[in-house]
Amino acid sequence: MSCHSPINVTVWGENVHEHKHEAVRSIYPDGMHSAIAAGLREDSAVNVRTATLQEPEHGLTDEVLAATDVLTWWGHCAHGDVQDEIVERVQKRVLEGMGLIVLHSGHYAKIFKRLMGTSCSLTWREAGEKERLWVCNPGHPIAKGLGNYFEIPHEEMYGEPFGIPTPDEQIFISWFQGGEVFRSGATWKRGNGKIFYFRPGHETYPTYHQAEVKLVLKNAARWVAPEGQPWIDSCPNVPAEQAPEPITVQGGSLHNPGEAGFR
Amino acid sequence: MSCHSPINVTVWGENVHEHKHEAVRSIYPDGMHSAIAAGLREDSAVNVRTATLQEPEHGLTDEVLAATDVLTWWGHCAHGDVQDEIVERVQKRVLEGMGLIVLHSGHYAKIFKRLMGTSCSLTWREAGEKERLWVCNPGHPIAKGLGNYFEIPHEEMYGEPFGIPTPDEQIFISWFQGGEVFRSGATWKRGNGKIFYFRPGHETYPTYHQAEVKLVLKNAARWVAPEGQPWIDSCPNVPAEQAPEPITVQGGSLHNPGEAGFR
Amino acid sequence: MSCHSPINVTVWGENVHEHKHEAVRSIYPDGMHSAIAAGLREDSAVNVRTATLQEPEHGLTDEVLAATDVLTWWGHCAHGDVQDEIVERVQKRVLEGMGLIVLHSGHYAKIFKRLMGTSCSLTWREAGEKERLWVCNPGHPIAKGLGNYFEIPHEEMYGEPFGIPTPDEQIFISWFQGGEVFRSGATWKRGNGKIFYFRPGHETYPTYHQAEVKLVLKNAARWVAPEGQPWIDSCPNVPAEQAPEPITVQGGSLHNPGEAGFR
Amino acid sequence: MSCHSPINVTVWGENVHEHKHEAVRSIYPDGMHSAIAAGLREDSAVNVRTATLQEPEHGLTDEVLAATDVLTWWGHCAHGDVQDEIVERVQKRVLEGMGLIVLHSGHYAKIFKRLMGTSCSLTWREAGEKERLWVCNPGHPIAKGLGNYFEIPHEEMYGEPFGIPTPDEQIFISWFQGGEVFRSGATWKRGNGKIFYFRPGHETYPTYHQAEVKLVLKNAARWVAPEGQPWIDSCPNVPAEQAPEPITVQGGSLHNPGEAGFR
Repeated sequence: MSCHSPINVTVWGENVHEHKHEAVRSIYPDGMHSAIAAGLREDSAVNVRTATLQEPEHGLTDEVLAATDVLTWWGHCAHGDVQDEIVERVQKRVLEGMGLIVLHSGHYAKIFKRLMGTSCSLTWREAGEKERLWVCNPGHPIAKGLGNYFEIPHEEMYGEPFGIPTPDEQIFISWFQGGEVFRSGATWKRGNGKIFYFRPGHETYPTYHQAEVKLVLKNAARWVAPEGQPWIDSCPNVPAEQAPEPITVQGGSLHNPGEAGFR
Repeated sequence: MSCHSPINVTVWGENVHEHKHEAVRSIYPDGMHSAIAAGLREDSAVNVRTATLQEPEHGLTDEVLAATDVLTWWGHCAHGDVQDEIVERVQKRVLEGMGLIVLHSGHYAKIFKRLMGTSCSLTWREAGEKERLWVCNPGHPIAKGLGNYFEIPHEEMYGEPFGIPTPDEQIFISWFQGGEVFRSGATWKRGNGKIFYFRPGHETYPTYHQAEVKLVLKNAARWVAPEGQPWIDSCPNVPAEQAPEPITVQGGSLHNPGEAGFR
Repeated sequence: MSCHSPINVTVWGENVHEHKHEAVRSIYPDGMHSAIAAGLREDSAVNVRTATLQEPEHGLTDEVLAATDVLTWWGHCAHGDVQDEIVERVQKRVLEGMGLIVLHSGHYAKIFKRLMGTSCSLTWREAGEKERLWVCNPGHPIAKGLGNYFEIPHEEMYGEPFGIPTPDEQIFISWFQGGEVFRSGATWKRGNGKIFYFRPGHETYPTYHQAEVKLVLKNAARWVAPEGQPWIDSCPNVPAEQAPEPITVQGGSLHNPGEAGFR
Repeated sequence: MSCHSPINVTVWGENVHEHKHEAVRSIYPDGMHSAIAAGLREDSAVNVRTATLQEPEHGLTDEVLAATDVLTWWGHCAHGDVQDEIVERVQKRVLEGMGLIVLHSGHYAKIFKRLMGTSCSLTWREAGEKERLWVCNPGHPIAKGLGNYFEIPHEEMYGEPFGIPTPDEQIFISWFQGGEVFRSGATWKRGNGKIFYFRPGHETYPTYHQAEVKLVLKNAARWVAPEGQPWIDSCPNVPAEQAPEPITVQGGSLHNPGEAGFR
């Protein structure tokens, strides 16, 4: 990311509950993705577009992904409807360097499970209880502008054990009124892509309208934005005559020179 | 693992090259899996069985996996023939605690890519050159009985970049005669399962007959063996009336009490 | 560790508050170290001795440390009285493979700060409030025999941010009645030694008499016990004529052959 | 780091060999620190100053460190002459967010050992042999502009085992002509500071005049530059009446309200 070019964010939304449940529609009349996008647009360094499950290729064509620096992902009841081919495409872009922000029930999204390699399970309760998110590293860019903690008055509870690989960094841990705790903000790097999981965001509460939540998402979009150079991964054969040190071929071979490996 | 009960190891082999290529058959007349199993059987604390791609369910039925403490995986040209359902089954057992040793070209096996979440790619050359494996932590159980390094006279070259998440521990790094280096032995934990990737083992060389390679595999089988208790992961709902702290339900809900979450 | 030889644990105690404060003495009449040792002795596979600040060399002579598989450390008001030479000696043994369990206010012990390299700071409150420790990985050996969580009725509060490097594994996270959270159980490996930090254990509460706390310590002693072979680290010169590959010396040198490096 | 404000780099040099050994002086007539600084000055976004062991407070006063975004550290024969007070001051700034680049024999510098917590030892040979540094993640900002590898014609050899904690990311691994390998470029985060260790740079070879080495240092200076906000760590007491949730104090206490904790 150059400081002079904007960050291109694509906000992906499942966009199903908003059309089925009045409770959700009343809070997010234009869809949750629109609310998430509106929050991100408060940062003038960011260009935001949205994409939804219902669009062709779920709105995530090769062209869109190639022009996306950061993808945010909210899904819940329709994880199973996301085509595997699109998931693979998103994964490839993350490994190349695209940042990914996975939100709330996205813990069970195909793309998150695929990048983590674990169950991504947790415990949960829908009681509209108070959540208090503590900052584990106040110096981290994702926590910029926050105090020691912030509260969300009504949220779904997610509790440990959270079935994830050890995060690279723990940014937030939540305290729940009902007695549980959860690793609510965590980062990983896969390939050259930065991943941030952020817990809050149940569809029946106005979480994405809250200032602190919008601040975290704006901070996170800047932080997961690509910082290196694009790297298209492959599995190249290095012919013996191109070895850095001179060698003589010995023993048998199953491949012809320069041939692609098995996958 | 109790010290009184044996470790049950299942050696999985693709078992294809051995039947197609005389070069492979002459080195491994009973199949590569048989040679790998023979090496492991030198450890009297280990019970070894084998399973191959060609068997029903690739020899990896629920019963076999439930009775397996450690699974070793060698595949190459037929990664694509492994059924996704079996891969998912193996992954589930790893997350529960089964140890997994991934060998050589298994870097591209579906199970390894699924557990890593990355490309798992590398560079390669088939020239029968010398490989020298250096020990990065001489105190690690997997390196027990080795000196500072050991050599394999003829091997395929694998070179960096190796498309993996940062390992929990780096056990071996290889020096190749042709000038490359590679992270040849590395560990990760996913769920409660320990994973060890070990680079050597190209099918056209007698690598699995070499004493140091057999020693590493014996050490690794003991190290990745389950050390905790089985944990069957799920995503349980905690009804509000069972919250550790008393709470009153507030706000809307999409779920009925005790209902399973969306996947 | 062989399964037939016992684990030798040395319980180190600062042993100061017990003599100054009636509140502490009434709970731990023989000293906190004696209570911690008594809990560990419930495991017949463990040999336990104690050592205290007031003994010559703080009870941690070369002989004692050489015969110690696992060291537990509780200190608070007298961290500054621990001699640097003894701290260095303990660190060396950890790097060689000795397990280390750091307890409660030991987060500020010289040995812990030295092994972590960070501030190890936190927030705190002494109000005798309820602490609930959640298990982040129910399959981990340290959590064996526990349910999803356990509670301590009265404890000091420690809160995030906790100034530590990212743990290798997160075992426990605490929920406090007063509203905070804390990474209460975490593991790291330094050199070949396993380290476990365990939060509970304020001197004015009977924490070390509680069954779940004793269970965690027994589990942890087994888990941090050395699993590899002793490795005495050094910084050896490899003379050019002993290089694995033949080389000719070129360019200048500041060292004589075989000479030790600068430190 | 704002893109509009420059990065302030302080290049620290031990500055001893240059005055004792003609072989070193002839390559670095103005001192190694001057050559390192000259390379960094090729980046117009960087302000560079130098500091040496011989200056008062080793040139690292509170004022200098407060105005330093990135510190580079080269030392060898005089590690022991660096005052502990200055080391502590540098560590504190790293934890607050200052970037640190540790060069070559700096693996044994007090500041590096203190931040790592491990032995930081390795094997070594001074034979002027060829070193080839392979890029483990071509997409990482530190590798920007490099090919798959680059070579240094004459360098000291450093070999595994390298006594470090597992790096957050492996950037380079070296192949040596004499047969060894080494983790030559690695990153860690401690507190809010990024640390990069870079192996090359023996005083008797013109390594710091080589274009690829200068490029890596320029890339690294940008990458380790602070990206968050300053965070002055402390260990604050949270009085019971300021707890986020209302609590009643129970049980004994050794501290008075608001008092500082023991260190």
